[in-house]
Amino acid sequence: MANEMIHLSFVIRHLSFVISLGGPMRHLLTAAALLFATIASAQPKLEITTKEAFEATKVPAYKGNHADIYRYIDQNLPAHTAALQRWVKQQSISAQNAGVTDMANMLRQDLLSLGFKEAELAPTKGHPGVWGYYDAGAKKTLVVYMMYDVQPVEPADWRVPPFDGAIVDHDLGRVLMARGATNQKGPERAFLNAVEAVQKVRGKLPVNLMIVAEGEEELGSPNYPEVIDRYEARLKTANGVIFPSNGQNPAGDVSISLGVKGILYFELEAMGSERGGPTKAEVHGSLKAITDSPTLRLVQALASLTSKDGNTIVVPNYHDAIRPPTAEEQQLINAMMREWPQQEKQFQQSLAINEWIDGISGEQSLLRYLYSTTLNVDGLWSGYSGPGVKTILPHKATAKVDSRLVPNQTPEQALGLIRQHLDRQGFTDIEIRQLSGYPPAQTSVSAPLVQAAIGVYNKYGMTPSVSPRTGGSAPYYLFTDRLKLPLVSAGIGHGSGAHAPNEYMVVEPKQGSKVAGLAQVEKFYVDLLFALAEGK
Amino acid sequence: MANEMIHLSFVIRHLSFVISLGGPMRHLLTAAALLFATIASAQPKLEITTKEAFEATKVPAYKGNHADIYRYIDQNLPAHTAALQRWVKQQSISAQNAGVTDMANMLRQDLLSLGFKEAELAPTKGHPGVWGYYDAGAKKTLVVYMMYDVQPVEPADWRVPPFDGAIVDHDLGRVLMARGATNQKGPERAFLNAVEAVQKVRGKLPVNLMIVAEGEEELGSPNYPEVIDRYEARLKTANGVIFPSNGQNPAGDVSISLGVKGILYFELEAMGSERGGPTKAEVHGSLKAITDSPTLRLVQALASLTSKDGNTIVVPNYHDAIRPPTAEEQQLINAMMREWPQQEKQFQQSLAINEWIDGISGEQSLLRYLYSTTLNVDGLWSGYSGPGVKTILPHKATAKVDSRLVPNQTPEQALGLIRQHLDRQGFTDIEIRQLSGYPPAQTSVSAPLVQAAIGVYNKYGMTPSVSPRTGGSAPYYLFTDRLKLPLVSAGIGHGSGAHAPNEYMVVEPKQGSKVAGLAQVEKFYVDLLFALAEGK
Repeated sequence: MANEMIHLSFVIRHLSFVISLGGPMRHLLTAAALLFATIASAQPKLEITTKEAFEATKVPAYKGNHADIYRYIDQNLPAHTAALQRWVKQQSISAQNAGVTDMANMLRQDLLSLGFKEAELAPTKGHPGVWGYYDAGAKKTLVVYMMYDVQPVEPADWRVPPFDGAIVDHDLGRVLMARGATNQKGPERAFLNAVEAVQKVRGKLPVNLMIVAEGEEELGSPNYPEVIDRYEARLKTANGVIFPSNGQNPAGDVSISLGVKGILYFELEAMGSERGGPTKAEVHGSLKAITDSPTLRLVQALASLTSKDGNTIVVPNYHDAIRPPTAEEQQLINAMMREWPQQEKQFQQSLAINEWIDGISGEQSLLRYLYSTTLNVDGLWSGYSGPGVKTILPHKATAKVDSRLVPNQTPEQALGLIRQHLDRQGFTDIEIRQLSGYPPAQTSVSAPLVQAAIGVYNKYGMTPSVSPRTGGSAPYYLFTDRLKLPLVSAGIGHGSGAHAPNEYMVVEPKQGSKVAGLAQVEKFYVDLLFALAEGK
Repeated sequence: MANEMIHLSFVIRHLSFVISLGGPMRHLLTAAALLFATIASAQPKLEITTKEAFEATKVPAYKGNHADIYRYIDQNLPAHTAALQRWVKQQSISAQNAGVTDMANMLRQDLLSLGFKEAELAPTKGHPGVWGYYDAGAKKTLVVYMMYDVQPVEPADWRVPPFDGAIVDHDLGRVLMARGATNQKGPERAFLNAVEAVQKVRGKLPVNLMIVAEGEEELGSPNYPEVIDRYEARLKTANGVIFPSNGQNPAGDVSISLGVKGILYFELEAMGSERGGPTKAEVHGSLKAITDSPTLRLVQALASLTSKDGNTIVVPNYHDAIRPPTAEEQQLINAMMREWPQQEKQFQQSLAINEWIDGISGEQSLLRYLYSTTLNVDGLWSGYSGPGVKTILPHKATAKVDSRLVPNQTPEQALGLIRQHLDRQGFTDIEIRQLSGYPPAQTSVSAPLVQAAIGVYNKYGMTPSVSPRTGGSAPYYLFTDRLKLPLVSAGIGHGSGAHAPNEYMVVEPKQGSKVAGLAQVEKFYVDLLFALAEGK
């Protein structure tokens, strides 16, 4: 989801990466032993019951060496860099419908040039998707999720014009500085550069490819399900899904995440009605003496959803569907915990937060971040918010509320419980308008796709930190649940500034940096294609 | 207070008038027998224990006939109309500091021309007040409260330029259509026209006059106490205060009100702090899993102040200071109740309200409107309020809250109880910023000033409906409590559109209308001056 990328992008190895995921899935994991205390309406207890930890270093490093292809990449680096520049120069601001269809056509044309037999726009109610199929006659098929749209820009805040594709000097080396450089055109076109290299040197790819791109990721992927619908039967025959991403932080560390939370996003609104309160416009504030206040109604309804500190959801049965972390997930968390105590301090500092919720720290803060459902007010408004005194009784009050969903919560069920609770508390007059909603998604670390990816990382000495999940949300359930495919964000390299000015992707890192340059990013993708083809 | 005039100005005889009061008092009435049930934190019960009703018709009609002065007024009507036009042509928008000092000087000059011995600007931290003293060598002294500032305008919404002083045809007759026409330059300058007429015909006035004008009424009179401070000793020697007003509704009915509620206006704010939550800026919404939400804190704090329906203040002891209506006030209410059952339906319709609070009607709705303290949210804001989905956890949430105060509540005590309650509920982190606060004000119907005014109304066959109080607020305690003077808004004539486009005052009513024209408005003031001089 668009805003899932905004704030944390630099922060820490894990949380920075996992939140900066963008794009669309859920994999139903079988529930393990119930670790949660069954206190009705209380925050379930999250516990780790194993001492074992997942050891990413033990995944065998990928052994393949495709020197001929690597050489091609090195020799064609200027042209490959130019391909990234060409992509970022083509505006594709979905929110402003600026250049979107031109970018969709550019992607389609590029796929045709790369030997894709099928390349077509997939119309939706909104901006079109792009479908591409590369038939390698191979046994394995890889789905590549792409987004071709970008965020709007405030050109005045940029060092360089945001659609010029400038290569500039940067603390980390030479970087491509442009809107879309890292979110997500840079890594996506780097992946296609790798495809081109394999194709040119070897004549064909080691796997079949299905590209399913969307032009509305920054809008929250409202019509992406239509694209999946259209190719569902064929997509189901694939072996897994990758989302090309710059997976390194500035220090060169890599993290990958195997799941996302789902989300329920809705507006709560109170208005004057037959039962009282002004129905058409604000009235004079003095009328509170004899008039219901929709604003106070909304406040009371909202307040009824949580404990007094705002930190525990008190909607009955809201936590019932939540399963505890599986044994596999617990092992991943045990591995993460080696670094977490240092990371959480940094994380708090970067967010200007002095204490986590309920004074927790260490294992509990990591578990809660990854495994808690939430209820958050994103926005709240009613009446007069200007300077000084204005005495009105507003006829309307609205809140934007989101709840992050963890397995096995669903948005339908969560919304139903909230509605039921409000009704039982007498708030039948409070309207709920759902704006978004999808379930969480989970991929197992044992999936061959994930093992292959970790193997390639290990080949490059970049053993990833593997998180079972991020606290952020994306509609990955489309892949993990509907198509039953494992999904992993894959790639090396580094970029930042998604949704901000001076967005960049490192093209040529400083001497001694652990960050991969464009050539190395492409070689990683080459290896990943072969690792997949050669794997289980 | 500026916004005390906005909404109800047409509505009903009583409520329309009493809320449309503007300007600055409190008179401590001795408490009568306690009628309130002493249920802690509950809405006190309001009861009427007498069957007697105040009979305004029994106040002897003023008998004086000042035909020589009336004739002068009729002969000079074009010049008198021009005086009103001259005043409205001089902009004096306090919020935009447009023409304010020029208008203050125009008033000062006019007072000098009318034979005031003293006429001077009274500097304050804001716009200056204007002081004038007319020494008639009389036994009685009348204070005239005036406001010389006006609301801003949106010229595009006007039929005529708002500062042209146009006389235009209207459903009700010929009207002066301009900003300030009825709020408050029209009736104020009409009063001075009356002063001029008496002065010209008789050589001097029958009473001494003290003018205390302010240029910040539309800003909530923030510096008016400074003006009162400066002349306090002299003001205390006066016999009463009038506020010249167009007291008729379009049907010609007159109502007067003998008190106003006080007000406590404050902002409540929750922010991230040492105890948790983001302290500097919004963070990603997914962080709710481990982060306090200042928005939910504010919601909980606000919710703790009222019952679930938002209609009963549950702050302990909040109602303790409230005294029930005195015997005199009950008689006034009994008189009002003759018309109230019809009026309340009209009132609800005009406000687009289907039901009063708690399903009350009749006597209870009138009593509650006049005698209930309130807690109202005027504004509420936090985070994102634009279209669609944005997932953030805001670092700050703010509410504007007002509480209307009835005798014997004080803003200091009310604020103290709210702070104490929040602290006891654990909301010590919630900041309270007071923006305004003054106690209620009350004048007795038995005050000679009030009796004189009713007598003059009765002379013209316009027996007023007399309300003990309005639901709105004004800092009249400065007069009633500090100076111990009775205060009454006095005048006939009709105008509307205060704070709105096409504000007007009727100058020449349609044939058969019960609304007074400018000449009659001025004759009323002439009679009022003599009635005061001749009265007790």
